[in-house]
Amino acid sequence: MDPHHRSNLKIALNEPDKPFSTVVPCNRTAQPRSNYDRDYIGLDIGGTLTKVVYTMGSAVFLEKFATESIEEVLSFLEQLICRKELNFAHVVTTGGGSQKFNKSLSKLFTEKHGIPVLKKDEMESLILGLDFFIRDVDKEVFVMDHVTEKIRFLDKVSVKYPYMLVNIGSGVSILRVDGPGGQYKRVGGSSLGGGTLWGLLSLITNCGSYESMLQLSEQGDNRNVDMLVGDIYGTDYNSIGLKSSTIASSFGKVFKKEKNDTLRNNRDQVDQADIAKSLIYAISNNIGQISYLHANINNVTNIYFGGSYISAHKFIIKTLSYAINFWSKGDMKAHFLKHDGYIGAIGSFLTTAEHESASDNRSDADTISQKLDLTNLSETKPEFDYVESLSDDSSNA
Amino acid sequence: MDPHHRSNLKIALNEPDKPFSTVVPCNRTAQPRSNYDRDYIGLDIGGTLTKVVYTMGSAVFLEKFATESIEEVLSFLEQLICRKELNFAHVVTTGGGSQKFNKSLSKLFTEKHGIPVLKKDEMESLILGLDFFIRDVDKEVFVMDHVTEKIRFLDKVSVKYPYMLVNIGSGVSILRVDGPGGQYKRVGGSSLGGGTLWGLLSLITNCGSYESMLQLSEQGDNRNVDMLVGDIYGTDYNSIGLKSSTIASSFGKVFKKEKNDTLRNNRDQVDQADIAKSLIYAISNNIGQISYLHANINNVTNIYFGGSYISAHKFIIKTLSYAINFWSKGDMKAHFLKHDGYIGAIGSFLTTAEHESASDNRSDADTISQKLDLTNLSETKPEFDYVESLSDDSSNA
Repeated sequence: MDPHHRSNLKIALNEPDKPFSTVVPCNRTAQPRSNYDRDYIGLDIGGTLTKVVYTMGSAVFLEKFATESIEEVLSFLEQLICRKELNFAHVVTTGGGSQKFNKSLSKLFTEKHGIPVLKKDEMESLILGLDFFIRDVDKEVFVMDHVTEKIRFLDKVSVKYPYMLVNIGSGVSILRVDGPGGQYKRVGGSSLGGGTLWGLLSLITNCGSYESMLQLSEQGDNRNVDMLVGDIYGTDYNSIGLKSSTIASSFGKVFKKEKNDTLRNNRDQVDQADIAKSLIYAISNNIGQISYLHANINNVTNIYFGGSYISAHKFIIKTLSYAINFWSKGDMKAHFLKHDGYIGAIGSFLTTAEHESASDNRSDADTISQKLDLTNLSETKPEFDYVESLSDDSSNA
Repeated sequence: MDPHHRSNLKIALNEPDKPFSTVVPCNRTAQPRSNYDRDYIGLDIGGTLTKVVYTMGSAVFLEKFATESIEEVLSFLEQLICRKELNFAHVVTTGGGSQKFNKSLSKLFTEKHGIPVLKKDEMESLILGLDFFIRDVDKEVFVMDHVTEKIRFLDKVSVKYPYMLVNIGSGVSILRVDGPGGQYKRVGGSSLGGGTLWGLLSLITNCGSYESMLQLSEQGDNRNVDMLVGDIYGTDYNSIGLKSSTIASSFGKVFKKEKNDTLRNNRDQVDQADIAKSLIYAISNNIGQISYLHANINNVTNIYFGGSYISAHKFIIKTLSYAINFWSKGDMKAHFLKHDGYIGAIGSFLTTAEHESASDNRSDADTISQKLDLTNLSETKPEFDYVESLSDDSSNA
């Protein structure tokens, strides 16, 4: 969710230097090729981040931009579609911005370059993307043992329904997915998500990017600002099973009467890293509890967490895993994805492939699997390296 | 939860001017009287606030102190027990602080003044207090129509089990109460409560008290800082029933790349009142959803909200009412109390009365009802006036 972050592309692209409305020298050949030879592009325009997935031959590339800089996204895309070696049949869009920026997208792609813009439903794209990751990509999905903190990558496997999809972007959507092809219900959500973390920490800390907030939190100790059961009781609260280490009140220790003579004084008393850690803890725990409760009511045991809030960050994954295990008493399992932020973009992109493969009488999975080198995904997104650096316990599974 | 707030007592008490450890001239007579003539005192020492309930003859008084100034509480209590016209048989304590400050309490009351300290369980005190308010106090409990914002006070009525008790102090406890006498289970909770609001707003705003934070929020518009569905989509998201006015991400609009060159700059762009409103909205909505989910799983339809977070504040009550109605599709009902912060203190106090009335072969309700002028409660707590100022729709019920 860091707008300053640019993935290390396998093939270096020219940095966009002109807004899309100016005349860009275009080498686009626009010659029809077979579907099999076409390149694909999917665009998930969220409230905070725009996620772009596109192919060049067999390689797949992932990019993130700040949605508030939508001109930068459009400029990047225009440069991309104008490369003569690439041949995009459509630009597929999803997320709220596909609706909000509908006119700008049509003006650029359809009117200027003759490429149709296909608008796809956000929730259906998320489900398509997740199903694809589960079913077609080896070791994309992983689980964490919240005690040992070891992660285990899962082999690709047929999708088992129903499952819960908890997508944590700026806000949170919780879907119960009953089967492929739009069989889902949005059962809940929360306004406390990635946008909350980013917004509050931009007010309280000096961090200018999401990634720096996550890094800052790693040096923090939430117990300096959170009120624990032990802070209130001096001990455990045994009769209802609350340990002294349980967080009773997030930020409950921040306000001190004596120190609060001036605002500046109080703010200076508090370590920014502790605040960052506490807020990540609070938001992640909260999403974990709500996800469990909805899963319980819907009688579902497998929960998949996606969205750029997570960004494959170890502490967030651990907290969500712990919460699901704690509340469900071990009956439910939290799953994560290496490319958690790109589920919707991948899904939107697949809807085109699916459409085309249907006309070619091939399954979409076959088409994509044959066409793309999915291991290349691993080279284009830093978070993957982060997850890899965690101990992989697959061999002991 | 404002430590600077002191209730406007019916009988003016001397302000404490000496810490409890110094010698206080004591006029305590300590002569045994009949239970019926005794005065009662109950003390709920929470993580942030200490709530005191005591009687003087037939009048009942309610007081709040900051727990961090526990010496001030003890000094106040010592002055109280030393008044010659009062006769306290016990000091009853509950809340985490009754455990944490056990030694200080024993030293002052038992060792110095010969008054036994009775320690009561926090959750059981909450339930006793709530049952008492429902069953024995007319127009203490009320409900709000979240559309018209009209409130309706309820007459005292026999308690119907099971119900949910959601107590929002520094943190949140959610209890399913199945019957009187300890028939309950703590089914959930949240670390996002009053302490979170107070802590975060003490970092972001210039407010020095909880009451001033609530007042500040009344001038705010959360739409300036929250990202709405309409901000993302430009319209409703009809296929899943999300209106454009729905909050997608709390604080999701705070971070702006252009404005975030320096922290100070970004913070100065944001109105403190908008932040206060947004945070109250977010925390209240979140508690509402979690409460609904636990009530759903436990098959309970009546939910009672208590705790000093609410402080009979209109916007909090409205948000909780709306959330319960929205999630339950009207099947569940949110109830509130005029003296929401004192449920535990009243409950602890009743455990003594209950004990004594049993030995006197009278029911505790009879004892208390005969002894105390419960309408006097209304004169000792400002929040009551606040609630009264809301339109009372009782006549149309």
